[in-house]
Amino acid sequence: MNHTLGIDLGGTSVKLGLVSREGALVSRSEIPTNAGSGAEGITSSIAKACHELLDKAGLKAAGAGIGIPGGVNPADGAVSFMPNIPSLVGFPMGKRMSELLGCPVFLDNDANNAARGEFLFGAARGMKNFVLVTLGTGIGGGIFINGDIYDGSSNYSGEIGHMIVVPNGRRCGCGNYGCWEAYGSASSMITRAKSLIERNAGTSLRKYYPDNLSVKAIEDEAKAGDITAAEIWDQALRYVGIGIANLVNILNPEAVIIGGGIANSGKPLLKRVTDMASMNAMPMPWANTRILLAELGNTAGVIGSAALAFMKLQDRSDR
Amino acid sequence: MNHTLGIDLGGTSVKLGLVSREGALVSRSEIPTNAGSGAEGITSSIAKACHELLDKAGLKAAGAGIGIPGGVNPADGAVSFMPNIPSLVGFPMGKRMSELLGCPVFLDNDANNAARGEFLFGAARGMKNFVLVTLGTGIGGGIFINGDIYDGSSNYSGEIGHMIVVPNGRRCGCGNYGCWEAYGSASSMITRAKSLIERNAGTSLRKYYPDNLSVKAIEDEAKAGDITAAEIWDQALRYVGIGIANLVNILNPEAVIIGGGIANSGKPLLKRVTDMASMNAMPMPWANTRILLAELGNTAGVIGSAALAFMKLQDRSDR
Repeated sequence: MNHTLGIDLGGTSVKLGLVSREGALVSRSEIPTNAGSGAEGITSSIAKACHELLDKAGLKAAGAGIGIPGGVNPADGAVSFMPNIPSLVGFPMGKRMSELLGCPVFLDNDANNAARGEFLFGAARGMKNFVLVTLGTGIGGGIFINGDIYDGSSNYSGEIGHMIVVPNGRRCGCGNYGCWEAYGSASSMITRAKSLIERNAGTSLRKYYPDNLSVKAIEDEAKAGDITAAEIWDQALRYVGIGIANLVNILNPEAVIIGGGIANSGKPLLKRVTDMASMNAMPMPWANTRILLAELGNTAGVIGSAALAFMKLQDRSDR
Repeated sequence: MNHTLGIDLGGTSVKLGLVSREGALVSRSEIPTNAGSGAEGITSSIAKACHELLDKAGLKAAGAGIGIPGGVNPADGAVSFMPNIPSLVGFPMGKRMSELLGCPVFLDNDANNAARGEFLFGAARGMKNFVLVTLGTGIGGGIFINGDIYDGSSNYSGEIGHMIVVPNGRRCGCGNYGCWEAYGSASSMITRAKSLIERNAGTSLRKYYPDNLSVKAIEDEAKAGDITAAEIWDQALRYVGIGIANLVNILNPEAVIIGGGIANSGKPLLKRVTDMASMNAMPMPWANTRILLAELGNTAGVIGSAALAFMKLQDRSDR
């Protein structure tokens, strides 16, 4: 198995890549998801794009992995929930894709796959126990225990973004109040910025309102001395640190690895989050924990999905 | 290995028991810890009590387990921290006890052992993934993953009592603010009751002040209609439920098992905590999770420590 296909299925686009055993992204493409075309339509257009990618590269894939923004039913391998593409719920996507591609196809949550990618090819190489925290629109998590994803008892471990960090706090997209992702995600920062601008706060963020507000804009204006932007930035990273401290206290991992869009902010973010986590974690589990940035960046979805295929094929050949 | 010794080491007393392979507590005794007598003194008086227990029962022990209110260094098996009995820190208690007893002796944190006890002989029989939450003076945790204690990367997993649930909240014994144990432990309820009485709140709890205040008193007065007591009780169980929901969201366990002194309150407590956890957990990881009361009660320390010995001896014979 020299190459596998990684398929990163999102609500608006599907990213595809052919990944080598060393983690190199040999070839890539992107197609629209066409969420409206139904489960069979979505799946067959992805399979077509995979065949084109393989033909162009002149290579074969030993298998394929698909990362979905949702969950998989361990009993039948079907999609069990996917808020962005409801037509796929209940559909045995891995099985159908396997028929269309003529190779084994594996399906898992995108955050789990991103953790697999970091494990095989990124910041978590050689680690047995770590947590990948993806800070993006939401907060997702992939938990590695004893060198593999810990699935939980019904395949729903790692809903770390919905850990309550402020009882009776801000409303979260999930319908509950005070979830970590309502305080530490990229979208929580943007929502906060919008609502402060709408309330007439004095802030240089106004020039980005409404459509160009981004984590980068908030970080830049904070650095440039805007107090409102700095407050949004500092508060979000404080909560990121608190959530990470909670994971350290519970799981005593070798590392917590920060991925997702916010991680692009790099070292200043890492320093602040690490200091905040350090303040809130117990000294003993904290002592040996490293807080690291994910290494796969924008390719995490594709390479992580390919990593799923590599790991599952390896499991099969070990048996 | 028909019997093992379970040794539950506390700050003021040591409980000992001889436990059968079926989990029966065949024989038991209790001695003062004599924390002032130093590591060697404490250890030799426990060994003496073990010999007496075995002689009286006319039985041999295949091994012994010790549960400590603290941590063990995985590198050398020595006690790595124990706030209640500082003289034991750095002392290779398992090794020394093994010399004195003439059988293998194993050492671990008491909450981990309580989880082992529930796994072999109690509420968690047959489960692979569960969390034992001990609600007592503090909140401790033992996390089972794939049928055994998950130790974490440096033997400090399960510090669940220090998960932050209220940023900038009540001061915790650990020195931080807002830890779960400052809101959901037995001592947090008693501290809250004392401070309300001292502030002249109208409450029937006053008759227990200061030395007879207990979780039972608070529960009883709450049931009898005292609004202050009910508020303390309800608030604490609300936080217990929130912390459990966080564990469910992160770990998707088969069950969360509630042990420790508070668990004596039984079914009404279980109902309230379950409802509060249900409100705060994500529907998917929650769907298959059971919230259960621990079954070993007051014997959890001794039987759990004996369970540690049974499990470690089994591991050895499997190798």
